[in-house]
Amino acid sequence: MRLGIDIGGTKTAAVAMDANGRVTEQIRMPTGWGGEAVVDTAVRAVTELAGLTGVSAHRFDSIGIGIPGQVERTTGRVSHAVNLGVDDLDLGGRLAGRLGIGVRVENDVKAAALGAYHLLALDGSMAFLNVGTGLAAGIVFDGRLWRGARGTAGEVGHMTVDPSGIVCACGQRGCLETVASGAAIARDWPTSDPLPVRALFDAADTGDGRAIALRDRMSDGLAMAIRNLVLTVDVDRVVIGGGISAMGSRLLDEVLRALRASALDSPFIASLELGSRVQLMPLGSPAAAVGAALVGVGG
Amino acid sequence: MRLGIDIGGTKTAAVAMDANGRVTEQIRMPTGWGGEAVVDTAVRAVTELAGLTGVSAHRFDSIGIGIPGQVERTTGRVSHAVNLGVDDLDLGGRLAGRLGIGVRVENDVKAAALGAYHLLALDGSMAFLNVGTGLAAGIVFDGRLWRGARGTAGEVGHMTVDPSGIVCACGQRGCLETVASGAAIARDWPTSDPLPVRALFDAADTGDGRAIALRDRMSDGLAMAIRNLVLTVDVDRVVIGGGISAMGSRLLDEVLRALRASALDSPFIASLELGSRVQLMPLGSPAAAVGAALVGVGG
Repeated sequence: MRLGIDIGGTKTAAVAMDANGRVTEQIRMPTGWGGEAVVDTAVRAVTELAGLTGVSAHRFDSIGIGIPGQVERTTGRVSHAVNLGVDDLDLGGRLAGRLGIGVRVENDVKAAALGAYHLLALDGSMAFLNVGTGLAAGIVFDGRLWRGARGTAGEVGHMTVDPSGIVCACGQRGCLETVASGAAIARDWPTSDPLPVRALFDAADTGDGRAIALRDRMSDGLAMAIRNLVLTVDVDRVVIGGGISAMGSRLLDEVLRALRASALDSPFIASLELGSRVQLMPLGSPAAAVGAALVGVGG
Repeated sequence: MRLGIDIGGTKTAAVAMDANGRVTEQIRMPTGWGGEAVVDTAVRAVTELAGLTGVSAHRFDSIGIGIPGQVERTTGRVSHAVNLGVDDLDLGGRLAGRLGIGVRVENDVKAAALGAYHLLALDGSMAFLNVGTGLAAGIVFDGRLWRGARGTAGEVGHMTVDPSGIVCACGQRGCLETVASGAAIARDWPTSDPLPVRALFDAADTGDGRAIALRDRMSDGLAMAIRNLVLTVDVDRVVIGGGISAMGSRLLDEVLRALRASALDSPFIASLELGSRVQLMPLGSPAAAVGAALVGVGG
């Protein structure tokens, strides 16, 4: 029995997975704020799944954790997890001490990529394009996570799209993330809606010119991310996930429109059949928790 | 004994490689124009290497060919090889008929990537950025060529950098190739120098404002290609090759300057240490011929 835990900014999801890769138990709980609370949340998830499965914590075959921020995989050290109030945390060491078993820690987007590949029963190659507060991808080749030379594979949100654009959190100017991400929408379309992109799409549907422009800018940006992923690594599929996937077909339709527009004047781009490679990850699917359970197995 | 043949726009290079991966013979000859002449050139290269090595053609362990244009790998069919005057050619079938042995055909940039990886004795992951008439990359992971789902991996020249830019041969507007390639320089800096980029660099060195702007545009474009390759697949190394590598350190210094500039305001980009990952492939090195000999072995 494997355990996978996805520690998110507000909620933590965890799954127990049997030897056949089937999810047998699934739980959700709020995530605490700060390093201590994050460790407590992970321990609680393990304890609850131990109770539900009847397997004691130190008897699990593996425990994997997906968490936002930079992860040092060999030690399980986490840094810059700003959404969790964590600047620097020896999550791997702390959990090993509390649980009496080693845990594997992976960046949440990379874990979600592996989980999506598994849950969608894909083969070949896939990029998981996570549109949350930021924009990043996880790349899976033949069922294995491609982390790259230094773990920064998939950082497509920091490709420059406009050298005269807005300064990004990373310090560069005009990164793709500054036009196509949850943070970009929240910045440019202030609203009380907990999902600003929904408020934006609603306003665009009523014909608001500025909303239409911002919606199109985001759709064009996501289309560019998809195009660049295919032009670089030529993945079989691009799966769109993250908080923005709550928009469902309203979002997918816009992205497909932008992809069609880019193929209109280019037989080469048309030949890539980008639209047929794209799909949405259903919101609420436990991709990152499942991927965390698979870290070290499939990738 | 393996044979590798690199059929270029004006010259054909061919190598014989022993079981240890050492090049034992190396020849060069002019390439003929059009399909018939291309077939004749390949046959002549095989015949000459058979003479030099004392191994008759049908006793070679394999024969591989690198050629510009689109290659259908299963059949060895070549299309759109405009620099060779070839619109559509069943190169694989024609050579099998003439030589009595199957040949493997691969796109020349992909072959050069594999050959560069071998000749530079690299490990890990590498992108070979070929700056010739066009701009394209070949990607090698752990010694194996990554072709992608449909063989279009590495088409970084067709990432959009300026939506209001010049129309590219591919039909899109503002592709990276329209600012950072031999064709882009030849278009914007007409000269009788057989290497227009040299004339451009010379003019820039004398302080010509427009030459400096064009040189910087190209260097910035190549830096962007390198940045995007690392941000997407995070390769250990990026090797710059193709005709433009004749500029040697004059080119490399400009690219390194552009990479440093992009890291200046971004600790994230600085942390990628892009400059330390980049190197030039020496001009005249038989990378594509060596790679062609290795196609089907290492990749």
